[in-house]
Amino acid sequence: MFIGRVVGTVVATRKESSLDGLTFLLVQRTAPNGELSEHFVVAADAVGAGAGDLVLYAAGSSARQTAVTKDRPVDTTVMAIVDLVEEEDDFAYRKDSEN
Amino acid sequence: MFIGRVVGTVVATRKESSLDGLTFLLVQRTAPNGELSEHFVVAADAVGAGAGDLVLYAAGSSARQTAVTKDRPVDTTVMAIVDLVEEEDDFAYRKDSEN
Amino acid sequence: MFIGRVVGTVVATRKESSLDGLTFLLVQRTAPNGELSEHFVVAADAVGAGAGDLVLYAAGSSARQTAVTKDRPVDTTVMAIVDLVEEEDDFAYRKDSEN
Amino acid sequence: MFIGRVVGTVVATRKESSLDGLTFLLVQRTAPNGELSEHFVVAADAVGAGAGDLVLYAAGSSARQTAVTKDRPVDTTVMAIVDLVEEEDDFAYRKDSEN
Amino acid sequence: MFIGRVVGTVVATRKESSLDGLTFLLVQRTAPNGELSEHFVVAADAVGAGAGDLVLYAAGSSARQTAVTKDRPVDTTVMAIVDLVEEEDDFAYRKDSEN
Repeated sequence: MFIGRVVGTVVATRKESSLDGLTFLLVQRTAPNGELSEHFVVAADAVGAGAGDLVLYAAGSSARQTAVTKDRPVDTTVMAIVDLVEEEDDFAYRKDSEN
Repeated sequence: MFIGRVVGTVVATRKESSLDGLTFLLVQRTAPNGELSEHFVVAADAVGAGAGDLVLYAAGSSARQTAVTKDRPVDTTVMAIVDLVEEEDDFAYRKDSEN
Repeated sequence: MFIGRVVGTVVATRKESSLDGLTFLLVQRTAPNGELSEHFVVAADAVGAGAGDLVLYAAGSSARQTAVTKDRPVDTTVMAIVDLVEEEDDFAYRKDSEN
Repeated sequence: MFIGRVVGTVVATRKESSLDGLTFLLVQRTAPNGELSEHFVVAADAVGAGAGDLVLYAAGSSARQTAVTKDRPVDTTVMAIVDLVEEEDDFAYRKDSEN
Repeated sequence: MFIGRVVGTVVATRKESSLDGLTFLLVQRTAPNGELSEHFVVAADAVGAGAGDLVLYAAGSSARQTAVTKDRPVDTTVMAIVDLVEEEDDFAYRKDSEN
């Protein structure tokens, strides 16, 4: 999985019908400390993530292995909202200290 | 999934027979605001997208999970036509304002 | 899928036995107009493509969804021989005009 | 698979429920000699790896083929702790000589 | 598939138990003529390849479709030992002429 930050949403009225009801998040990949990279993906939301959240997202067939995305044609899904990234006995990221 | 713009079509008479009847779109990946990148893919069309449309496309085994592409050997499928990309309480892209 | 040009073949006597009988094509990825990139792959041939042909090739599990490659351990397969690439109401590539 | 070094952990309270109980390791890809690259992934742990370990990690559907990750939506899993990397009759890496 | 050269092996005592008995080869991707690139992977061996061999390796779920790797969590497998790479009516690589 990769770490990314939710930076927006994508709305599409005309779509493959099995995608109905999913939320599509615009996610920008980040370094472990939350610093934004240049890389964007659009991911289905499996956890109720919102703008600003640092998240874990999975790609490939694993993206379809959640309650929300089962048997739906998505290739990237937000799986978790990150609380802490610990690196070398320090915190690279803490959700608490972001606000 | 990635965001891309449909910029053309690919025609192939001689092909694996299970691909018969599919439309192959030439899609150029874009930034969230629709700006074109250098990256091209050829995707099966599951939603009736046409030249100029900003679309979402999925790759890998998920590309075969639509009514149109089921059990066909495609690895990239256009899944939705994008109406809006919302980013930081603003619109990075609006289909309405393109024409 | 990607567009590539068949530029050669790969011969391997000692191989996983389920690969017996397949032809392995050396394919160089191209731009939509057929211009060669630096990227090479080796793909199983599902359509009888030959040197010089512009082709569509698929990767991942989709590469195993053809009559020729079913249940064989290939991750890239040539699926079609390209006749035309249409881009912005013009032809980026025409097989007819190559000779 | 790729070789990487475990450099930290990621904690996420709110997550897809089928991920409960897994440990998520922050892994930095390395050269065969253990030299760190710029590339990070977050991988489920199948072997009890810890900070500093050089490991092998697998991606894609293979990441779900372990006792620990079976049927869980993970796309990257740490599969082994590396003891030795032998290259050209020499050791590019030896776990023994690291301490 | 990609072409690579076997440049070493990786030994790991502590590993996911379903990997027991597999040989892990350190493979460096090459150009069609066998010239080494900067890209390394660790691949399970399905054909008895050894140091110096030019090989074809497959990635993703296809890596698990061999007699040796079936149902094991590997994402890259060496599938064949290359004898010849023919390119533009010439030999880009001949195993015979290497020694």
